[in-house]
Amino acid sequence: MVNKEISDDDQELIKRANSFFGPLPLPDTTGAEFSAIKVQLGRMLFYDARLSKSSFISCNSCHSLATFGVDNLPTSVGHNWQLGGRNAPSVINAALHTTQFWDGRAADVEEQATMPILNPIEMAIPHEEISTDRITSIKEYVELFSQAFPGEENPITLTNIGNAIGAFERMLITPSRFDDYMNGDPEALNEQEKRGLVAFLAANCQTCHMTPLLGGHIYQKFGVMQDYWELTGSEIPDLGRGEVTKDPNQNYFFKVPGLRNIDRTYPYFHDGSIWSLRDAVSIMNELQFGKKLGDQELDDIVAFLGSLTGELPESARVVPILPPSSATTSRPDLN
Amino acid sequence: MVNKEISDDDQELIKRANSFFGPLPLPDTTGAEFSAIKVQLGRMLFYDARLSKSSFISCNSCHSLATFGVDNLPTSVGHNWQLGGRNAPSVINAALHTTQFWDGRAADVEEQATMPILNPIEMAIPHEEISTDRITSIKEYVELFSQAFPGEENPITLTNIGNAIGAFERMLITPSRFDDYMNGDPEALNEQEKRGLVAFLAANCQTCHMTPLLGGHIYQKFGVMQDYWELTGSEIPDLGRGEVTKDPNQNYFFKVPGLRNIDRTYPYFHDGSIWSLRDAVSIMNELQFGKKLGDQELDDIVAFLGSLTGELPESARVVPILPPSSATTSRPDLN
Repeated sequence: MVNKEISDDDQELIKRANSFFGPLPLPDTTGAEFSAIKVQLGRMLFYDARLSKSSFISCNSCHSLATFGVDNLPTSVGHNWQLGGRNAPSVINAALHTTQFWDGRAADVEEQATMPILNPIEMAIPHEEISTDRITSIKEYVELFSQAFPGEENPITLTNIGNAIGAFERMLITPSRFDDYMNGDPEALNEQEKRGLVAFLAANCQTCHMTPLLGGHIYQKFGVMQDYWELTGSEIPDLGRGEVTKDPNQNYFFKVPGLRNIDRTYPYFHDGSIWSLRDAVSIMNELQFGKKLGDQELDDIVAFLGSLTGELPESARVVPILPPSSATTSRPDLN
Repeated sequence: MVNKEISDDDQELIKRANSFFGPLPLPDTTGAEFSAIKVQLGRMLFYDARLSKSSFISCNSCHSLATFGVDNLPTSVGHNWQLGGRNAPSVINAALHTTQFWDGRAADVEEQATMPILNPIEMAIPHEEISTDRITSIKEYVELFSQAFPGEENPITLTNIGNAIGAFERMLITPSRFDDYMNGDPEALNEQEKRGLVAFLAANCQTCHMTPLLGGHIYQKFGVMQDYWELTGSEIPDLGRGEVTKDPNQNYFFKVPGLRNIDRTYPYFHDGSIWSLRDAVSIMNELQFGKKLGDQELDDIVAFLGSLTGELPESARVVPILPPSSATTSRPDLN
């Protein structure tokens, strides 16, 4: 709690913000599950392009920490320049989501991290064994996996590759000025940002965008009042969660994206169809509530959303030095 | 000078090493030419994929600082998954080379850095203006270019993009245990590495691989005694420097690569045709001198070459946070 004089208005707004959101929980670095060695190993694997068939694409290629854990492309570039079907969500703060991917088909960052490795249009490793064979052929990794997964007879598995990358991703948490505000510093937001927060709540955005991530915890139909593609111009209607559950009642449902760092993770929506955050806010309000926000409200909400941007500390942005391949490491396959 | 007892053998070997090589000169950070702000700007541009048509490829894509400034591919992946014609040389210690590229067609790292941006099979920006328009559309870059190039009326030029990236690359210098040895620490190399240094000199490798980089300063014919492709298995004979100068006497001449970090910058030669450093050493000796090195000599030389590997400090490996695009930034073009 910061020792500054707090007006009644701020006191009330801080209280309301805490009731819907609350400050970001910081990473737990005390447990054995996310040990320093596992995080270090995960950081290396996150940058290691040998987890792709070509040895050209790493996790960081599409989830660059230079650009808030995304690639700022509508959909990502994968093996042989194939384009993905959905916009790459950020790895930053991702660990706090209740499920992973736009359709929630992975339970956590550990499971998620394994899936692009095998996806033929992403990193395109054709068989699970190839990823583990490559790792096994690299002496330093063999050592690090035994240390990171003590007591396991065969620690080099795709599951543990995901466990290590997930442990690293759990450290990628970015508190921002909005957390300072919720923690009681009335000067952490400026007047326009506070108006934006009030407008955000008045427009009921928190119906879906709640919890410390302002989202990431439920599925919701994209386009409650009308089909989303009428406003986004999306070419191919995407069934979203319905494709996973095969329940037609969940067609066009997507995981509600968290809004942390939202002004830096353009373009927006599951297909990256909208580039402007102001347009995205306007479209959401129209699609979900059938209402049009005024220019002032839009400007204020966008200003408020900017206060959700927080930078990773330098220590989290150090590129690791990767261990060398050996004579038995399978060669890059660019075809 | 380290205060340890130095044997006569070491004293003599250190003296010989200094006569051919000498320790790596450290970056000059005092002059205005490579000011801190210019280096900071260059570091951002180095990681910024908006310098490519697709906005997917940055300098770091093929010159990753996680892998000693290279991509460990035979030739690099460029726009639309096109493969380059030659193996990507490292950006680390590159500033100390007397010319750039395998054929010396750029004078320095500043000029070199601009060329992949416009190369249609690399970053593929179709017109110089597009790179500068993109930068001009990004508010923070406009500010940083004025600060980095004070007094220039129009500082945002492709030349200055190269100047900034070059300034950053000039900081990427990696002294190693070999420098400690040359500076007088007899324990910096182990016995095998010292034997390897003796064998390296006995085999006359320093004829071409001299100066602190052990190369990077002259052109030499690749294959003095026989055509190189007979031993490398290269499919397409590459004229090298002859293609630049149109002088048939310089056909198959290439810039002699520096050997710093050589055990981490596989695969080898201008086309990345050879993966094993031991094979590369053996082939070079046969091609240039018509001699075969023995197993022991090869093992020792490879051990010595390993002592040329030095890691960039963490401070040089911090990923910058890139400024956001604006409404006027031209969109990624993945076609």
